[in-house]
Amino acid sequence: MMIIMRSNATDEQIDDIVRIVETNGMRAHLSRGVERTVIGAIGDGRPVDKDQFMYLPGVDRIVPISRPFKLASREFSPQDSVFPIDGMSIGGSPIVIIAGPCAVESRQQLLETAHAVREAGAHALRGGAFKPRTSPYSFQGLGEDGLQILAEARQVTGLPVVTEAMSPEQVSLVTQYADVLQIGARNMQNYSLLHMAGESQHPVLIKRGMSATMEELLMAAEYVLSHGNRRVILCERGIRTFESATRNTTDINAIPVLKSLTHLPVILDPSHSIGNWEYVTAIARAGVAAGADGLIVEVHPNPAEAYSDGGQSLKPERFATLVSQVQAIAEAIGRSVAPALQTETISQ
Amino acid sequence: MMIIMRSNATDEQIDDIVRIVETNGMRAHLSRGVERTVIGAIGDGRPVDKDQFMYLPGVDRIVPISRPFKLASREFSPQDSVFPIDGMSIGGSPIVIIAGPCAVESRQQLLETAHAVREAGAHALRGGAFKPRTSPYSFQGLGEDGLQILAEARQVTGLPVVTEAMSPEQVSLVTQYADVLQIGARNMQNYSLLHMAGESQHPVLIKRGMSATMEELLMAAEYVLSHGNRRVILCERGIRTFESATRNTTDINAIPVLKSLTHLPVILDPSHSIGNWEYVTAIARAGVAAGADGLIVEVHPNPAEAYSDGGQSLKPERFATLVSQVQAIAEAIGRSVAPALQTETISQ
Amino acid sequence: MMIIMRSNATDEQIDDIVRIVETNGMRAHLSRGVERTVIGAIGDGRPVDKDQFMYLPGVDRIVPISRPFKLASREFSPQDSVFPIDGMSIGGSPIVIIAGPCAVESRQQLLETAHAVREAGAHALRGGAFKPRTSPYSFQGLGEDGLQILAEARQVTGLPVVTEAMSPEQVSLVTQYADVLQIGARNMQNYSLLHMAGESQHPVLIKRGMSATMEELLMAAEYVLSHGNRRVILCERGIRTFESATRNTTDINAIPVLKSLTHLPVILDPSHSIGNWEYVTAIARAGVAAGADGLIVEVHPNPAEAYSDGGQSLKPERFATLVSQVQAIAEAIGRSVAPALQTETISQ
Amino acid sequence: MMIIMRSNATDEQIDDIVRIVETNGMRAHLSRGVERTVIGAIGDGRPVDKDQFMYLPGVDRIVPISRPFKLASREFSPQDSVFPIDGMSIGGSPIVIIAGPCAVESRQQLLETAHAVREAGAHALRGGAFKPRTSPYSFQGLGEDGLQILAEARQVTGLPVVTEAMSPEQVSLVTQYADVLQIGARNMQNYSLLHMAGESQHPVLIKRGMSATMEELLMAAEYVLSHGNRRVILCERGIRTFESATRNTTDINAIPVLKSLTHLPVILDPSHSIGNWEYVTAIARAGVAAGADGLIVEVHPNPAEAYSDGGQSLKPERFATLVSQVQAIAEAIGRSVAPALQTETISQ
Repeated sequence: MMIIMRSNATDEQIDDIVRIVETNGMRAHLSRGVERTVIGAIGDGRPVDKDQFMYLPGVDRIVPISRPFKLASREFSPQDSVFPIDGMSIGGSPIVIIAGPCAVESRQQLLETAHAVREAGAHALRGGAFKPRTSPYSFQGLGEDGLQILAEARQVTGLPVVTEAMSPEQVSLVTQYADVLQIGARNMQNYSLLHMAGESQHPVLIKRGMSATMEELLMAAEYVLSHGNRRVILCERGIRTFESATRNTTDINAIPVLKSLTHLPVILDPSHSIGNWEYVTAIARAGVAAGADGLIVEVHPNPAEAYSDGGQSLKPERFATLVSQVQAIAEAIGRSVAPALQTETISQ
Repeated sequence: MMIIMRSNATDEQIDDIVRIVETNGMRAHLSRGVERTVIGAIGDGRPVDKDQFMYLPGVDRIVPISRPFKLASREFSPQDSVFPIDGMSIGGSPIVIIAGPCAVESRQQLLETAHAVREAGAHALRGGAFKPRTSPYSFQGLGEDGLQILAEARQVTGLPVVTEAMSPEQVSLVTQYADVLQIGARNMQNYSLLHMAGESQHPVLIKRGMSATMEELLMAAEYVLSHGNRRVILCERGIRTFESATRNTTDINAIPVLKSLTHLPVILDPSHSIGNWEYVTAIARAGVAAGADGLIVEVHPNPAEAYSDGGQSLKPERFATLVSQVQAIAEAIGRSVAPALQTETISQ
Repeated sequence: MMIIMRSNATDEQIDDIVRIVETNGMRAHLSRGVERTVIGAIGDGRPVDKDQFMYLPGVDRIVPISRPFKLASREFSPQDSVFPIDGMSIGGSPIVIIAGPCAVESRQQLLETAHAVREAGAHALRGGAFKPRTSPYSFQGLGEDGLQILAEARQVTGLPVVTEAMSPEQVSLVTQYADVLQIGARNMQNYSLLHMAGESQHPVLIKRGMSATMEELLMAAEYVLSHGNRRVILCERGIRTFESATRNTTDINAIPVLKSLTHLPVILDPSHSIGNWEYVTAIARAGVAAGADGLIVEVHPNPAEAYSDGGQSLKPERFATLVSQVQAIAEAIGRSVAPALQTETISQ
Repeated sequence: MMIIMRSNATDEQIDDIVRIVETNGMRAHLSRGVERTVIGAIGDGRPVDKDQFMYLPGVDRIVPISRPFKLASREFSPQDSVFPIDGMSIGGSPIVIIAGPCAVESRQQLLETAHAVREAGAHALRGGAFKPRTSPYSFQGLGEDGLQILAEARQVTGLPVVTEAMSPEQVSLVTQYADVLQIGARNMQNYSLLHMAGESQHPVLIKRGMSATMEELLMAAEYVLSHGNRRVILCERGIRTFESATRNTTDINAIPVLKSLTHLPVILDPSHSIGNWEYVTAIARAGVAAGADGLIVEVHPNPAEAYSDGGQSLKPERFATLVSQVQAIAEAIGRSVAPALQTETISQ
């Protein structure tokens, strides 16, 4: 931590800061410039609350030096984390595609979608049984019934299931059915939920909050990692900006920057990122071109009748086009879309 | 809902939309302009998912007409909601001031602060026992021990207690001790928590999420209201913008706009809104000048040693100055700060 | 400037940076922490381009220490700048109110407004002759005819005139007629225009760009100051954020923060900041409560027929209410609205 | 334009609005819903100032129906605009790459870069002679000397030149030397400059302002188009958001959305969009994958010594890698990078 003093800070104020730094168990290191003095507070790498120092007389501002995430950092683990999820593998060179409806609406809707996305080349099935909805009057998901339908879809298609838990007490229920536990964007800083996800043994897919910085996303991952669960997938899904022509603004920069900061797999949700089915395929291509390790895409057999997110859901045939275009992009950068599931893995 | 067609939409596409509107139980009403046709979908006021229509051929965009919040709206309840909280009252002309530390750190720290803020004129005590922290390595709060300390502080000072629950299963515990249940900014769209808060009989203070629109804040209130709890307080606490000179950007506009849209009390947290103790008093004055019904302010006996938010906490003597300046502003607009607690309400 | 090295930077890389710092005429000062090394590059206070160092191997990021603005800073000039504008004075304790229509539309409209705002207590008249409009098809202002009407209004009311130049070559024309040269928000980083304004001898009112940081606003002022013109007024007018319930988001934080960073007068434009006449008075009160030295308010005799900004313009009678409420707020904080012009200053 | 009334608007208020709509030469069309009445104001497609109606009693809000841009819209011109620039062509299937330094620093630096980018496959040369710099103390460009160096570079390499004018009076000078006139991001709403660019006969490259919406970018284009110049290129260069890990946030969504809204060519500046050379190539790939018609990339022979933007400039050898990776992406989506200039077009 560097403590930057005001240009009119007195020697006495500087001495006070040095004393406080030292009583906090750190070494103080002074740089006197022409205008300002900077005090380096050198510790053992443990995080220090910079707020304590902001208040002290003569201090202009505090600059943290160490990054606050440890286990999530490339420095902690230089190699890409690659981990298996029920037969498939994520984080390596092959690109993984997760697809399915926003919400599980009925057995028929889900099974139809599951077969269609499997046919088109998806490697895992998404679908919400518990839905965070802005309005209390909107469809809130089928709950455990939805989870059972997801489990049935897995059984008949062989696709592992990604689904969301919205509160800590749902974690044990959801993980009875799901292969990957999703933490939604609105819950990215729900620390009770992250803590519980960290104690589960399931891979966790964390969606970036709509106004979360990349660092905050990595800190959310750090919560899960620090409670003992090393299988975390990060997902860019668009951030909130002033631009209202699209639902969100895809932060495509986050793909290469996160890949540089962390060893964890980074995927893109092009559906929420742009919010309009017409453009989802273009954004999916961009994500893979930028280096994403996977995609999570909303697909619905009849988007005009979807209970939620119909406007950004692809019909199965458009999703098949997306997969083939993404495959071409993947090859252009020396990767490929992961092979489709082997038939023998499918129960019939 | 108005469905705005593309300028090149065909008559057939328009007819299709009309049919779908009608099969959804609404009346369709056409306006044909020179360039575009607009189809009004007139229902019974129940919310309709606009996403369904976004997808249909020929549609350019959808404009909702009804506001999605009902119980929270001025139209539902034109008079200001005023409700009692353990002897004091919020939502009326007198301005209420809630003050205390970010976190309960120890019995001594809390009792000292409680006495000091009561002395300076505060009407309620804030303090977190469960703390949402960005880092898993930071102090996470004293938990139930903290709640017990808060209860003791109430007993000795008479100040009602405002404190946060971070997950649905904490609600019943927190409400055993607290007078007002706080939903923090990071949990403003934690719908499981809002649902549970709606089922409690405690007043609920909802802090605006750092990237939540005013409408989303009102929808969070709607969750609580729609589950039967009519005592909701809204709190502006700064939003996230591109400006990095301050911790957040106080959305002072939200004060008069929310007061116009809703009958619920609206208060301001100047401490988080600007994030630096030097400026907290100026922002507190601005909030009351703009029409806020109350303030929630961080106060710590020794900010330089606070476990969290020290940089934005006021020392008790500065808080006393804030109260007297706010009193002057309140009088300038024909209001006043609520009277201090009567001595007889204090147990000793 | 502090150069923060990556945690895996080699000794050789560190040595290279030190050498480059020194060949740039600065001293290098090393702090070796447990995880990282930080190199302080200590110069003579002249600005250094940090981009040069970002590129070098082993560098993680660069932290500037000196602030980039000099002449605008409190450190350069600790006392508030107070300067006269044609009889009135800005920057001292008395609060100055500038009012008038968005655009000069006609002789009658402007004279009627000028008399009305003078009557209500305004100290200066605003009105655009050159209008920056988003659409090429919208009214673009009366040009020099508008300037002549403004000059006539000054003559008959005694109110000094604030009006905008949109390009460097308009500066000499506008300053023939105006008392204060306005730089609009969209031109805040029009450096050719700022340069020319710096060479004029007129006071310059710079509106903050809608996505400009406070530091960038101060750098715009620095352009004017560094070209020899010391009479600069800064104006907060709302920033662009995700919130769409209001036209802009008033950055009320900017008032006390700018007052702390600079000696220049800081005023607020509540009309653009919130964009809806209903709320303008509340925001004006908040601005003065937060410490603004003045206000600039849109007033139109018949807002429903205004060529531009009708929705945020006050009728003269509402403006009179604003002035009296602002007076009450000013008194509450120990200031006052500047006295109205003396009759003898008015030509008749 | 749809005028949405408040739910408690009276019949008299509705009648008043209807009358005002009609006296403005439009037809009024009423839709009475259960809660609210909506009045459609149907005109002849000319823009109407919605502010006039916002003010009227009983009005809740105004929704524009027609888009404000006409000449720039796909509806006006459904086919992609393709136009020649000094031998090359932009807007068609082949992807065009513009490259060069941020600023012209010296004859040697520019010629060296020009040869290098031509060698690597660039189709045009960028380089600023007039530089908009945040600080008045930073290098402001070589001015006309820089333009002469650019002209020499064109002569020896055959590459057409893209360079910026910062004010209306620079337009005639710059167009004596340049093939494409650039309007920088900070000047995107400098309407005097756009007007003058519209009167020139040179192609104009408009960079999106850092907080401009896509619609505002199209309105900037409309200024140029409406003054008679049909050769406009739009450039996404990153927008300003809360994310501070990168210099700007690439709005990759803007690529497919703009391509859908307008017939004009749309290119991406990956250098400013992410602001760090390490990630420029990934973002360039993403832009082409999303459908961009071209790229504009900063290249410097020795970025560590660049006068500006060194941190985001590529060395020539990295730029060559970018070109080959972009070529692979272009092929994956059925396009290709435009062929390199023929040797015979180069003067020697």
